[in-house]
Amino acid sequence: MGNCSQGCKDYFSRQKNTNIRLTLPVVCFVWQIAMIILFGVFIRYDKESNAHWVETKAHDNITSDIENDFYFRYPSFQDVHVMIFVGFGFLMTFLKRYSFGAVGFNFLIASFGLQWALLMQGWFHSLDPQTGKIFIGVESLINADFCVAGCLIAYGAVLGKVSPVQLLVMTLFGVTLFAVEEYIILNLLHARDAGGSMVIHTFGGYYGLAISRVLYRPNLHQSKRMQGSVYHSDTFAMIGTLFLWMFWPSFNSAITDHGDGQHRAVINTYLCLASTVLTTVAISSLSQKTGKLDMVHIQNSTLAGGVALGTAAEFMISPYGALIVGFFCGIISTMGYIFISPFLEKTLKIQDTCGIHNLHAMPGVIGGIVGAITAAAASESVYGKQGLINTFDFTGDFKDRTVLTQGGYQAAGMCVSIVFGVVGGAIVGSILKLPIWGDPADENCFDDEVYWEVREPATHHLISSQLPDEEEEHQESIPPILEYNNHMIHKQQDL
Amino acid sequence: MGNCSQGCKDYFSRQKNTNIRLTLPVVCFVWQIAMIILFGVFIRYDKESNAHWVETKAHDNITSDIENDFYFRYPSFQDVHVMIFVGFGFLMTFLKRYSFGAVGFNFLIASFGLQWALLMQGWFHSLDPQTGKIFIGVESLINADFCVAGCLIAYGAVLGKVSPVQLLVMTLFGVTLFAVEEYIILNLLHARDAGGSMVIHTFGGYYGLAISRVLYRPNLHQSKRMQGSVYHSDTFAMIGTLFLWMFWPSFNSAITDHGDGQHRAVINTYLCLASTVLTTVAISSLSQKTGKLDMVHIQNSTLAGGVALGTAAEFMISPYGALIVGFFCGIISTMGYIFISPFLEKTLKIQDTCGIHNLHAMPGVIGGIVGAITAAAASESVYGKQGLINTFDFTGDFKDRTVLTQGGYQAAGMCVSIVFGVVGGAIVGSILKLPIWGDPADENCFDDEVYWEVREPATHHLISSQLPDEEEEHQESIPPILEYNNHMIHKQQDL
Amino acid sequence: MGNCSQGCKDYFSRQKNTNIRLTLPVVCFVWQIAMIILFGVFIRYDKESNAHWVETKAHDNITSDIENDFYFRYPSFQDVHVMIFVGFGFLMTFLKRYSFGAVGFNFLIASFGLQWALLMQGWFHSLDPQTGKIFIGVESLINADFCVAGCLIAYGAVLGKVSPVQLLVMTLFGVTLFAVEEYIILNLLHARDAGGSMVIHTFGGYYGLAISRVLYRPNLHQSKRMQGSVYHSDTFAMIGTLFLWMFWPSFNSAITDHGDGQHRAVINTYLCLASTVLTTVAISSLSQKTGKLDMVHIQNSTLAGGVALGTAAEFMISPYGALIVGFFCGIISTMGYIFISPFLEKTLKIQDTCGIHNLHAMPGVIGGIVGAITAAAASESVYGKQGLINTFDFTGDFKDRTVLTQGGYQAAGMCVSIVFGVVGGAIVGSILKLPIWGDPADENCFDDEVYWEVREPATHHLISSQLPDEEEEHQESIPPILEYNNHMIHKQQDL
Repeated sequence: MGNCSQGCKDYFSRQKNTNIRLTLPVVCFVWQIAMIILFGVFIRYDKESNAHWVETKAHDNITSDIENDFYFRYPSFQDVHVMIFVGFGFLMTFLKRYSFGAVGFNFLIASFGLQWALLMQGWFHSLDPQTGKIFIGVESLINADFCVAGCLIAYGAVLGKVSPVQLLVMTLFGVTLFAVEEYIILNLLHARDAGGSMVIHTFGGYYGLAISRVLYRPNLHQSKRMQGSVYHSDTFAMIGTLFLWMFWPSFNSAITDHGDGQHRAVINTYLCLASTVLTTVAISSLSQKTGKLDMVHIQNSTLAGGVALGTAAEFMISPYGALIVGFFCGIISTMGYIFISPFLEKTLKIQDTCGIHNLHAMPGVIGGIVGAITAAAASESVYGKQGLINTFDFTGDFKDRTVLTQGGYQAAGMCVSIVFGVVGGAIVGSILKLPIWGDPADENCFDDEVYWEVREPATHHLISSQLPDEEEEHQESIPPILEYNNHMIHKQQDL
Repeated sequence: MGNCSQGCKDYFSRQKNTNIRLTLPVVCFVWQIAMIILFGVFIRYDKESNAHWVETKAHDNITSDIENDFYFRYPSFQDVHVMIFVGFGFLMTFLKRYSFGAVGFNFLIASFGLQWALLMQGWFHSLDPQTGKIFIGVESLINADFCVAGCLIAYGAVLGKVSPVQLLVMTLFGVTLFAVEEYIILNLLHARDAGGSMVIHTFGGYYGLAISRVLYRPNLHQSKRMQGSVYHSDTFAMIGTLFLWMFWPSFNSAITDHGDGQHRAVINTYLCLASTVLTTVAISSLSQKTGKLDMVHIQNSTLAGGVALGTAAEFMISPYGALIVGFFCGIISTMGYIFISPFLEKTLKIQDTCGIHNLHAMPGVIGGIVGAITAAAASESVYGKQGLINTFDFTGDFKDRTVLTQGGYQAAGMCVSIVFGVVGGAIVGSILKLPIWGDPADENCFDDEVYWEVREPATHHLISSQLPDEEEEHQESIPPILEYNNHMIHKQQDL
Repeated sequence: MGNCSQGCKDYFSRQKNTNIRLTLPVVCFVWQIAMIILFGVFIRYDKESNAHWVETKAHDNITSDIENDFYFRYPSFQDVHVMIFVGFGFLMTFLKRYSFGAVGFNFLIASFGLQWALLMQGWFHSLDPQTGKIFIGVESLINADFCVAGCLIAYGAVLGKVSPVQLLVMTLFGVTLFAVEEYIILNLLHARDAGGSMVIHTFGGYYGLAISRVLYRPNLHQSKRMQGSVYHSDTFAMIGTLFLWMFWPSFNSAITDHGDGQHRAVINTYLCLASTVLTTVAISSLSQKTGKLDMVHIQNSTLAGGVALGTAAEFMISPYGALIVGFFCGIISTMGYIFISPFLEKTLKIQDTCGIHNLHAMPGVIGGIVGAITAAAASESVYGKQGLINTFDFTGDFKDRTVLTQGGYQAAGMCVSIVFGVVGGAIVGSILKLPIWGDPADENCFDDEVYWEVREPATHHLISSQLPDEEEEHQESIPPILEYNNHMIHKQQDL
């Protein structure tokens, strides 16, 4: 240690302060107190969750407690809730030593995000002008979870490279931007997007990619030893994949109109996702010399069909139409992992840890296009006169809108979501570049030990491959496992 | 390596071509395209998922969107869906190095199978004679998942010994056979089998066992090092076990008649499964010298009660009746693992990786018998006059059937399912024996590295126990962990 | 081995007989047979799950099968069911080598407990005086699961230190005590406690802590090497945490009145839990020098808000009120892990493996207090005249009760649950102290190998830190991994 070589100097210059003992608690406390105050001022129970319902329901011609909307939204809500916390959380556990960060930070930012989303979405979508209050019910909870999904998608791009404080900042702005673009797309443009191809996936995808671009780390290869998966971490990730895949029909139908719309959205999503699995497997196998499958593709690209049907799921796209969408999404998403992700990293300097470009951004755009086309192609013969009005909500200010116009507004909506994602992400990325957030050094990325008490040290001899020569020699004389044991003894004595 | 001994020659002669880079993508693409075409020709939304519902529901005296059948089937559907993908998938992850294959191939064949099932079941059960179309809704999705379950059960018998292409072929024929036997049992014989003791479990069990018999591998002991579990793989398998166990009440009630039938099926299955757990634990503990429990039993035999109540769950078997069924199933299934499985392997040459004979085939047959007896013993005093008619659907052509006759037809149904399983499995097994499917060599069974890119090599020194003597000596001079490190370095440089 | 030192003598004197080959099967068989007999005598289907419903529903003015209560309780039931088996089971898998015991024994005692709970709760709450029968439906199943939850909480305190036979005895008495205290609190005192802050969590918490106190092990440090977690066991535990967290809104609303009550309980619990996550993270980060997070806190304290809202969830506590409860519970529970648990162990000799004092007992008491205060503060202006009557069920004998009186009875209810927990636990603990139950020696605690066939031996060199000197030297001459290999070969040849 006496004479410090160039490499050693680099080592020390790379050190960053990842101490978040001040910032993280302060942010959590201050923001949570702010939430309490804002909820106190603005948020109230809606009619159906208020104890006065026993009186108001009579006024609304509701005769029985079991007609409460709770019973017709809650099962879908719980499925969506599982997607947000278990689905997104475990999908990101694939890295060999970032499972705590994947599941834990996902948990943290979703829990903050859903509170902020209830406020932001409330102000934009359901503020009662008379009372100045926001009335929430089970549908608001679903919408809050949806809003959070956009931010969790963005987390996928920067997984392992940011601090929890940065993630909270990302979520604060992400939810804010989400509520605005959602308001523009759904309310002003009156585009339909029940499963959020545009509003959630396109926005969330580009938001994350833009942030990742601004936070580009030229020396990320220094934590190469921590990249990639181990056997059990890939198995954990499949828990996330499967819960997302299974409950995606609930995601795309959770807030569609009751009745045939919700029913149809489930059938379409179910079929589309099944189709995606087969083409994902096909392309994954084609991409290897001996036809072996790659877990990265199976974990991610199998979900692309659900993303791409987010807009059109409630439309009369017909069962074979859903299969076709899934067919192409599986192909495109898997090829994205093979060809586009390396290109993005090398050429555009976008380091996308989870490949959200392939799972959310691209399929989201496809979903927007599919939605625009199927909307423009809708007809009374397929939907029925009243069915067409119901499906596209051609009522009130929009009662004279034609399906062609609707298609145009759908396309416009997609552009809005891309612009909000890219521009918003660039701005937020710049904020996150400030050297105050406790982000890890390049060589400590993807390592839980930076932000978590890890009781069992990584079996570091098994994962580090670029040891200097001296250590290599050292190992030959003393079996490394002993060194490890000593380390353990040391650790345990400390406890 | 210069002079190749006899063992070494054996080694090379055992080599098989497991390259599936051509066959797997071709099968996936061609079949998926076929699905799209067939769906385009045949499959349409049913009344309640069609945008025209706003008009047709008035005709059917439905006044509110929340009376859509979607709301009364969908929660059960989602539970069944979880059982198919997480339940079956993770139950099979118990092997130390076959978790990718367990979860991944389960995912693949279920995704293909459910599409094919919608077509096959549609043609046999719900083809509209006027339009020549199949109209699908949420109940069709449940039935498709059920149909797939039969094939996933069969997968359990051949787990680790077949290629994904073989699995897809197995699923193609399995779904086809399933739809035919289901048509015979439910429509022609008019047997009741809401939870599929006969239709799903007995058929699926014998189908898998027959295939495994035809594909018998006399030298399977060569991959002995890969058999058995490791600590975490057993824990992963418990995820599968528990989701199957918890949601089995939904499985047995998902397509029963609305109202008391569905309610009763849940209660019976819930009780039966609880009882099974206690007797499984008892027998498992009895089977070991010191009373230790065996995870194999806990993972599998605890589920036997759900299988055995598949037929009778909707009947008035009474709560204590359900407990009795569970009581004996736990005993029989666990003793199956201890005594019958080794016997089947040695004497009948049936290699049954997951022990589906103990979990599905035997309990399925018990379920068929229990169903026949409880049907034959049904009476108006227990069911009520109309209740009896409703429960056994004694309407239309069957309105004069007596409960005794019904019992006979139930028994006949069970025989049909066994015959279809055994004969169908024997034929499909012969097809799968063709040397074109890329199945693994005996010594590479139960190893994910054959069909999956495994980033982290198995810590092979920890799992291989039958090294030739030379290597053993070699190890003493160089610590094996170093060899491993070198291997890692090599691997990572390739990336 | 020739000359046995003092330490070696200690070793042998510490040996205990953990052979449960007689006791465990006998208890399982006898109790299960007793259940069958008692179910045969007492338990029948209720009106809505009886085939006679087709006749009786007309009498009750029910016009459609889809009005069966099944459809409005079953989704919540399944969520609760997942919490009981996956939630509690996996939450306790955090120990490095006790995952089988955590998930497996949880499975066993829950399966027994729910049967016994149906009987005990039936006798106390719903025995039909005319027929002498207990009529069960889906709501009974939820209540049985709830009752079991109390015992699973208690399991958390003694995790790793007791035999499965002891656990079954604990559950037998636990369920019995539960039914009695529940009867006193809900029926006699007419306190409200839909989510069981008092009835489930306070009782279960103190019951477990009292048992743990009686079973105090002064030499528990001898199994120190088995305490603590490893990386993947902490990830498994997060599966439990998240399923508990996500489905807690279902837990607190599962048996509340249909309509606005159930709707409101979900919203309150959802918000409260979100708030808890932020303050848990804040305190956890504050407690470490560099602000690192501790998985123990994230796994447990994030759930405290759900516990604390068990009583008040259905009240008009208002959204910001729910956030405030969560805010403080996150702080208190996390500080409990940091400060109170070590104090309890050192001073009061309560060894609480999972920290149930911080997750259930304390938050449960908080929940009782919050419930009493919010009940006492209820007013007609907030609830509406009829809403107040409905929410607190001021009907029949209690129609003249004021909210202040109700608050008093709520507080009395909490005292009852504490007394039942402490006194009941002390008595049951004394029974469990008898030397006949096969509990493990101090140095074998927290080790699955005592009660489970573990195929893969623990990589014991990695987890044992207190080897005698001789062995340490031995290791330096022979690489330990070889020893391990030999052990494996030996093991596999035995199979």
